[in-house]
Amino acid sequence: MAIVVQKYGGSSVANADKIRNVATRVSESFKKGNKVVVVVSAMGDTTDDLIELAGKINPNPEPREMDLLLSTGEIVSSTLLSMALHAMGFRAIALSGPQAGISTDSAFSRARITGIEPKRIVNELKKGNIVIVAGFQGLTSDNDIATLGRGGSDTTAVALAASLKAKICEIYTDVDGVYTADPRIVPEAQKLNEIGYEEMLEMATSGARVMHHRSVELGQVFKMPILVASSLADRPGTMIRGGKNMEQRNKVRGIAHDMDVAKITVTGVPDRPGIAAAIFMPLAKAGISVDTIVQNAGANNITDLTFTVTKNDLNRAMDIIRPVATEIGAKECLSDSRLGKVSIIGTGMQNTPGYAAKMFQTLFTQNINILLITTSEIRITCIIAEDKVKEAVRTLHKAFDLDKD
Amino acid sequence: MAIVVQKYGGSSVANADKIRNVATRVSESFKKGNKVVVVVSAMGDTTDDLIELAGKINPNPEPREMDLLLSTGEIVSSTLLSMALHAMGFRAIALSGPQAGISTDSAFSRARITGIEPKRIVNELKKGNIVIVAGFQGLTSDNDIATLGRGGSDTTAVALAASLKAKICEIYTDVDGVYTADPRIVPEAQKLNEIGYEEMLEMATSGARVMHHRSVELGQVFKMPILVASSLADRPGTMIRGGKNMEQRNKVRGIAHDMDVAKITVTGVPDRPGIAAAIFMPLAKAGISVDTIVQNAGANNITDLTFTVTKNDLNRAMDIIRPVATEIGAKECLSDSRLGKVSIIGTGMQNTPGYAAKMFQTLFTQNINILLITTSEIRITCIIAEDKVKEAVRTLHKAFDLDKD
Repeated sequence: MAIVVQKYGGSSVANADKIRNVATRVSESFKKGNKVVVVVSAMGDTTDDLIELAGKINPNPEPREMDLLLSTGEIVSSTLLSMALHAMGFRAIALSGPQAGISTDSAFSRARITGIEPKRIVNELKKGNIVIVAGFQGLTSDNDIATLGRGGSDTTAVALAASLKAKICEIYTDVDGVYTADPRIVPEAQKLNEIGYEEMLEMATSGARVMHHRSVELGQVFKMPILVASSLADRPGTMIRGGKNMEQRNKVRGIAHDMDVAKITVTGVPDRPGIAAAIFMPLAKAGISVDTIVQNAGANNITDLTFTVTKNDLNRAMDIIRPVATEIGAKECLSDSRLGKVSIIGTGMQNTPGYAAKMFQTLFTQNINILLITTSEIRITCIIAEDKVKEAVRTLHKAFDLDKD
Repeated sequence: MAIVVQKYGGSSVANADKIRNVATRVSESFKKGNKVVVVVSAMGDTTDDLIELAGKINPNPEPREMDLLLSTGEIVSSTLLSMALHAMGFRAIALSGPQAGISTDSAFSRARITGIEPKRIVNELKKGNIVIVAGFQGLTSDNDIATLGRGGSDTTAVALAASLKAKICEIYTDVDGVYTADPRIVPEAQKLNEIGYEEMLEMATSGARVMHHRSVELGQVFKMPILVASSLADRPGTMIRGGKNMEQRNKVRGIAHDMDVAKITVTGVPDRPGIAAAIFMPLAKAGISVDTIVQNAGANNITDLTFTVTKNDLNRAMDIIRPVATEIGAKECLSDSRLGKVSIIGTGMQNTPGYAAKMFQTLFTQNINILLITTSEIRITCIIAEDKVKEAVRTLHKAFDLDKD
């Protein structure tokens, strides 16, 4: 019998009725003869509510205590789903992350899974149980509870699927798959029937919110097919997987965008070794992720260094960079928080020239100014003004013929 | 340095302000130089809310899943108290029952503590941490979470105190000690400065709600002094402990009462061996606790058998008893759910005659009819009509001079 891992997000288990709906879907897979392992997130806004409650007591709670606190949310939803399956006459058992054998490192609030000992899950499946696992959490080597951070339950699901050698990992969410662009912005956006891991990774890191890139990476490493589909409808979703046939289709597979971009420019930077490290090490230590970095080498060994951070991190980043800039003898620090980015993504791009030129030309004809450009082998990203992002997504979607089946 | 174990109930940690208040009290004991271990219950109505939520999904949830669900309540309050102590500048760490090393049997929803491995707690205390333990829960040998049932967090506190060889276990609650009678019924009731384990046990099993009898028993076995005091006021509470001086005071130490009494009488029972077992075994199997049992041996080997159960169990008990009564050839099954009981308690009673006579005489002069009588060495209990209980408590309190210091 094949093992299927299903994951349901917080909005899919937000109340008793929705939990019953999930139980029905789970039981359908079980009745087909699958061994079913289900990973759940916390109900609805539970995690946010717990964070707010903690904030009333301590504005800067210790990550260790916070993780122990937050881990309760997924335990609640997993036990309730197990009870719902019992009420429908199915055998089921809820397991916390530690009970499911999930080990993590000690990086509280953003822990990585270091290993899974699936003995208990395998035993429960053998007994005929549907196994419900609390997502987002695991046990450190010090016997503490750590949570996996953003996208945590997706990561739990893919890791469990890999460890159990499941035939598929099904991620059920409030959208019914991966689209060529955000359908709220581009009504003509097409749902993709399938997409490769690399493309999905680029989509995820470029702003598509469907799945967190960590779980896609895991899927890629373990070659685990991942289905993204709606937890409400019975429409087919999008299959994320590897394989040759991925490259046969339209060369550009999707347009991703992200409104959460702020830019910092340090002007008049002396162009000598060690300068980049002097600027970026303090940011890394403060836990600030830097995305795009562009250096415009100028005359006289003087250069302008530009990089992007999330809008939320901008003020902290500026506070860190200003004294550093003074110290290294730079001219000034400028910032702009009204930016966004738009990306075109597709594995077919890597061996075919002309995509970049077409993208720039399309934006140019719409009078959209490009501030920064970054590329990977299968992605081209332009940083533009925030208020031009939607227009850029629509125009590019059309220009690359993504609105056609 | 001496170890002090403190326990705070759900009403003491019901919201952020109350949690801060508890943190202040905990820190005061720490500042006096104690090593402090704190056991907390779930916030306010959390446990009831979780039970209600589960009930919406499954009217008969599996006890294993229910325990895993309910255990989250105490984890939430323990992490928040830890965060409150951090915010005040103290070192603290929250531990779940399993992390605290608490092992239980697998009797879900009413598990017994089978052992405590306090290594982690001892280590955290050595590091200078105040240790906050989630009450009411432990880990079974199958790596499942089990809860201890009613009075569970008190039991956790006394068991931890015994295991850590603490100098005292302090139970902070919404009353400020043990009284000679319920002050809501007898305004002249006096707070006891101290009471022996046996007396407190009899008070607890006779209806006094201050502490659950399981934790008192544990205290008695391990000779752990238990202080019962208010979590809000700074008044001295009641010390529960052993020792000779217990017997020197007023011979009757307190009047306990309980409104939750229902009576079943099986009439015309053939008086032959095995009959009592035939009646009580099915009740025990159904998990129904029988309290008082009285058999009135009659003529011709025919007897009436009367026993009491809680009001909540009456209908189930009658459903079980009726077919049994028919089977054994009894005449009929009668029930009365409008009963209560009143008890006088005191170790001094055991070697001094006349207490029973005085109790019956006192009730007689108030025209209170006694339906059943049971006694232990240090307790006399009368089952009477529910609507006479308050009057009986007041009259007995006065008759035994408990309203005088």
